[in-house]
Amino acid sequence: MHVMITGAAGFLGQRLTAALIEKGSLNGQPLSRLTLLDQIEAPRPEVVSALTVEVVAGDIADISVLERCLAGEPQVIYHLAAVVSSAAEADLSLGMRVNFDATRLLLEGCAARGLSTTRLVMASSVAAYGGDLPEILEDMTALVPQNSYGTQKAMSELLINDYSRRGLIDGCVLRLPTIIVRPGRPNAAASSFASSLLREPLNGEAAICPVPTDLEMFVMSPQRVIEALLKGAEVPAAAFGLSRCFMLPGITVSVAEMLEALEQMAGAEALVRVSHVPDARITAIVSSWPARFETRKARALGFTGDADLADIISLHQRDRDVLANGN
Amino acid sequence: MHVMITGAAGFLGQRLTAALIEKGSLNGQPLSRLTLLDQIEAPRPEVVSALTVEVVAGDIADISVLERCLAGEPQVIYHLAAVVSSAAEADLSLGMRVNFDATRLLLEGCAARGLSTTRLVMASSVAAYGGDLPEILEDMTALVPQNSYGTQKAMSELLINDYSRRGLIDGCVLRLPTIIVRPGRPNAAASSFASSLLREPLNGEAAICPVPTDLEMFVMSPQRVIEALLKGAEVPAAAFGLSRCFMLPGITVSVAEMLEALEQMAGAEALVRVSHVPDARITAIVSSWPARFETRKARALGFTGDADLADIISLHQRDRDVLANGN
Repeated sequence: MHVMITGAAGFLGQRLTAALIEKGSLNGQPLSRLTLLDQIEAPRPEVVSALTVEVVAGDIADISVLERCLAGEPQVIYHLAAVVSSAAEADLSLGMRVNFDATRLLLEGCAARGLSTTRLVMASSVAAYGGDLPEILEDMTALVPQNSYGTQKAMSELLINDYSRRGLIDGCVLRLPTIIVRPGRPNAAASSFASSLLREPLNGEAAICPVPTDLEMFVMSPQRVIEALLKGAEVPAAAFGLSRCFMLPGITVSVAEMLEALEQMAGAEALVRVSHVPDARITAIVSSWPARFETRKARALGFTGDADLADIISLHQRDRDVLANGN
Repeated sequence: MHVMITGAAGFLGQRLTAALIEKGSLNGQPLSRLTLLDQIEAPRPEVVSALTVEVVAGDIADISVLERCLAGEPQVIYHLAAVVSSAAEADLSLGMRVNFDATRLLLEGCAARGLSTTRLVMASSVAAYGGDLPEILEDMTALVPQNSYGTQKAMSELLINDYSRRGLIDGCVLRLPTIIVRPGRPNAAASSFASSLLREPLNGEAAICPVPTDLEMFVMSPQRVIEALLKGAEVPAAAFGLSRCFMLPGITVSVAEMLEALEQMAGAEALVRVSHVPDARITAIVSSWPARFETRKARALGFTGDADLADIISLHQRDRDVLANGN
């Protein structure tokens, strides 16, 4: 089993690489080769000798870079490479090039090589939703993105669906909820506070809550996202029906519920580390993201989410402690 | 007022050209210049001296052809050029090039010239809908096209919406119902019978009905489509809200109702000219098209459809007779 990952040096790419190596197989076939593509060199994982790892540093929208990766005819391609939403909003042509043109080149490259049974798993996003949304979003709710990142993802989704329908590739697009708890430090992303609100107090550090506590978000732990990506390679093609694209089963949580879970898991001394400093800009962006989804299709296909916030926090603490102990 | 039309030599393009000249203005500004682009030379209309008409024959996906047309900085662009559904299904790269890449080039060309207030009116299609559809489609029903033409139109819609949101162009996308009664002769299109069923018997000729009479379609007369295109240039940008793309208010009619209207308008002798010769292929294609829409957005913006089938047939007879009398 030859697996290729684009965006392999990113947060999800590195975790997925580790998860694939740990799992050792996909669809019952042992993992024999990994192609790790990113614009910077992805960290080369420690592997047993039976696994060949090729690390490719290059521009994913450069056809010669893609050709080099596709020459090995991967049976599964994880397409995680993307310019994030703030960058795609700041630079339309950069976003179009990386988020859309590269997807198209990947599809055309696969079609040209006859890789019709190669499973292409792309990560899409809650940012593809927007417009006059219903209270609870369903699988047939329109994508009317209100940002260029979401637009480019929605266009890529359409193309993957059409290539799959035509039998040129075997696609699967997973729309990811907001991921909490991300490791690391707060960053410029509007959703950064959602991870920070739990991560910093659990580490004995201060955190800032910039939004009203009744604000709701649709969230999933990084651990469940990785499980979903692994599963995305194993769903039988015939099970998808008329659409290859669907929202993953996140859970709807309010900020108040996040703070409550924090207190339950780490006590009142953790809760007092959170200061409430309202930020109108962040509130406007985050409150425009839909927070309630039905995710009937994902569940019917067997995708599962976190049970609750306690589950999400426990997974974060387990991974943090494993990392701290160097295991 | 400088108006550019792509696909100007086509059925709708020629009718729109005539309607614009007859109307003489858009948004209260007198029509001063027309740029008619198509791959073949569009017929040069008879015009008064105050109107400059430029006829451009060329490939719409060729940037130099588009540049030539955009150099005159049109204030309204009607983007009607398209490879039709059967051709786009037969040749994926041709469809992508004409139905999607040309739209993108047009948007990029307008953005590069700073034509931010130019109203771009694109014709999209009922073919953009598909998948697990509800009984009655609404403005927020997802586009999950089951054909490459619909995919390319849906991708173009997303791009026009994003360019409009960013203030780079002022877009408006009208999804057209099945158009009846088209003039001319039966052709290879799966929907050809829908016009033929009325047109031929009204002319004293035979027609074939290849589908069950309980089959429903969502239809609009060419006359109302042209009215909608004219209106599409005049809707204030602020009225669109979060989406520039919507279905036009067609009417839902069954084949039985079409035959009934034919009998009422032209008598039993017209009805007997229709033979019923079931065709499974045509039935499969046409019955996959949704036939019931709410079209709340279009109606709120002031778009109107035909009152009923009698209205559609009367408009057809009026235009046919005008043509026959050379007026």
